[in-house]
Amino acid sequence: MRTIGELGEPGLIGRVSAKFPQTADVIIGPGDDAAVTSAPDNRVVSSTDLLIEGRHFRRDWSSARDVGHKAVAQNFADIAAMGARPTGLLLGFAVPDDLPVAWVDGFADGIAAECATAGGAVVGGDTVGAPAVTVAITALGDLGGAEAVRRSGARPGDTVAVTGNLGLSAAGYALLRAGADGPDEALAEHRRPSPPYPQGPRAAALGASAMIDISDGLAHDLGHVARASGVAVALDSSALVPPAGLRSAVERLAELGGGHRGVREFMVAGGEDHALAATFPPGTGPPDGWTTVGAVREGQGVTVDGRTPPPTSWNHFG
Amino acid sequence: MRTIGELGEPGLIGRVSAKFPQTADVIIGPGDDAAVTSAPDNRVVSSTDLLIEGRHFRRDWSSARDVGHKAVAQNFADIAAMGARPTGLLLGFAVPDDLPVAWVDGFADGIAAECATAGGAVVGGDTVGAPAVTVAITALGDLGGAEAVRRSGARPGDTVAVTGNLGLSAAGYALLRAGADGPDEALAEHRRPSPPYPQGPRAAALGASAMIDISDGLAHDLGHVARASGVAVALDSSALVPPAGLRSAVERLAELGGGHRGVREFMVAGGEDHALAATFPPGTGPPDGWTTVGAVREGQGVTVDGRTPPPTSWNHFG
Repeated sequence: MRTIGELGEPGLIGRVSAKFPQTADVIIGPGDDAAVTSAPDNRVVSSTDLLIEGRHFRRDWSSARDVGHKAVAQNFADIAAMGARPTGLLLGFAVPDDLPVAWVDGFADGIAAECATAGGAVVGGDTVGAPAVTVAITALGDLGGAEAVRRSGARPGDTVAVTGNLGLSAAGYALLRAGADGPDEALAEHRRPSPPYPQGPRAAALGASAMIDISDGLAHDLGHVARASGVAVALDSSALVPPAGLRSAVERLAELGGGHRGVREFMVAGGEDHALAATFPPGTGPPDGWTTVGAVREGQGVTVDGRTPPPTSWNHFG
Repeated sequence: MRTIGELGEPGLIGRVSAKFPQTADVIIGPGDDAAVTSAPDNRVVSSTDLLIEGRHFRRDWSSARDVGHKAVAQNFADIAAMGARPTGLLLGFAVPDDLPVAWVDGFADGIAAECATAGGAVVGGDTVGAPAVTVAITALGDLGGAEAVRRSGARPGDTVAVTGNLGLSAAGYALLRAGADGPDEALAEHRRPSPPYPQGPRAAALGASAMIDISDGLAHDLGHVARASGVAVALDSSALVPPAGLRSAVERLAELGGGHRGVREFMVAGGEDHALAATFPPGTGPPDGWTTVGAVREGQGVTVDGRTPPPTSWNHFG
């Protein structure tokens, strides 16, 4: 089995770069001191994330390709949540000497495939040696003339709507922890989340007043919107429409003895969904594909069916 | 001694963010799903680097503040090397639980100070837990209407010029390895390189045909220019003007018994300078502050005083 140590840095860079398709937004791609990407709007949207082996992914739970997909998805989801279109991606990649070249190939395939789905291109990167696989992604995007949709714009009287596969990733994670090898939908969503990228700019165009990427759970992340906007958010869990595969995942978890959480609990509290939640002023509506699940009111905090949801804790240092 | 584990992630983010001054380029800064930075040129220049404790810095050789300075410097130097002005910076930061809060404070102070020197602002970031301190920086810049200066534009007949403190960082590194605590200039340059940021856009404005940030040694990095441009680069080492402090550093190294390398050897082969080298077509000249040190010819490769320089190897996996 050939390793990265045998391939060396220049070989690694060439091998990985060859997999990345370029787009019309790429003016100067990888290979120079810096990349140049189009920013037709005169503003550039940017977001960065670090993923560390053993903390954010496990090589025995996720394939290399899955890790590539997920790293891109969680970053371009942040771009979409501002109402922007993904344009460019920078990839920092730290690898141990004994990492198989085949793992890098799969990882780069996942990066390339998710970039193609989102519409962005890899424009630059850096590769270094490290004890654990570490992935640093920075995503760039363009607002296309729209106003950026912040967390702070929700106002009493707005409706709250969501789009994407709420709860499915968390159910997949629970299944993996329980040692299950199915059902497939939940495992697949945990390994390769599928953010509804185009819905971000669509919501912005239709007048969304606030928007957020759901990474730590719907109720938790709407808490950020409530705080930033100085409002209360009231969710009606009966309005939530479970994504395909969530019910069967929850049933399987119950069979395995880990079934104290129901479908709505996963949808309200599940992390790593990379769904989108947004608020819409009266007279504006969510685009097709969104579900209205609540209302913005005077006050503070998030309630689910009138009650305070249990706290979720994603302390990254815990 | 208070640690990051005790402070927690929200405390860490708030503590660090408060140190970062904002600039007129920041439209939406840290705290939302993504940042929005001005890109008045309709294009955005971007570059990313990963720094890992034990590989790229040592906490016993560099202060936290030094590490912050250096992480920013090496990234904004890449922006300058395209002819662009630094605008924004995204900071991915992975830290062990037992890292002292005081280290993070110093690191953030260094980031803030170097951003102020370069003219860019911290616009976003991510903090996670990790076994080793890991810093992922992405720098953004604006070309201000200039053409990006690539590595591939050098043509036979162009002159080669440099600006910045060539060799001083490598001499400082050699001193640290030899256990020396001086002279100060070389140690300081290794710990906090001082890229000549404004010289990048100035060289672009005066017609530079190719430009590169010197990170792996002048001869090595001009090899990239030669290859990308399909030309030969002939350096005249007698034209190199040693930066203040290099001679005394080399003398000290000789006293310590590690002195087989001379001043010009450090200037030709020393890494992590973050100086700039550029080529200028006939009739255009380098800006003030640059030194003409060679010529571009037909052919391939780099020569120093007519000879092929010894290979330098900065294999990041070695």
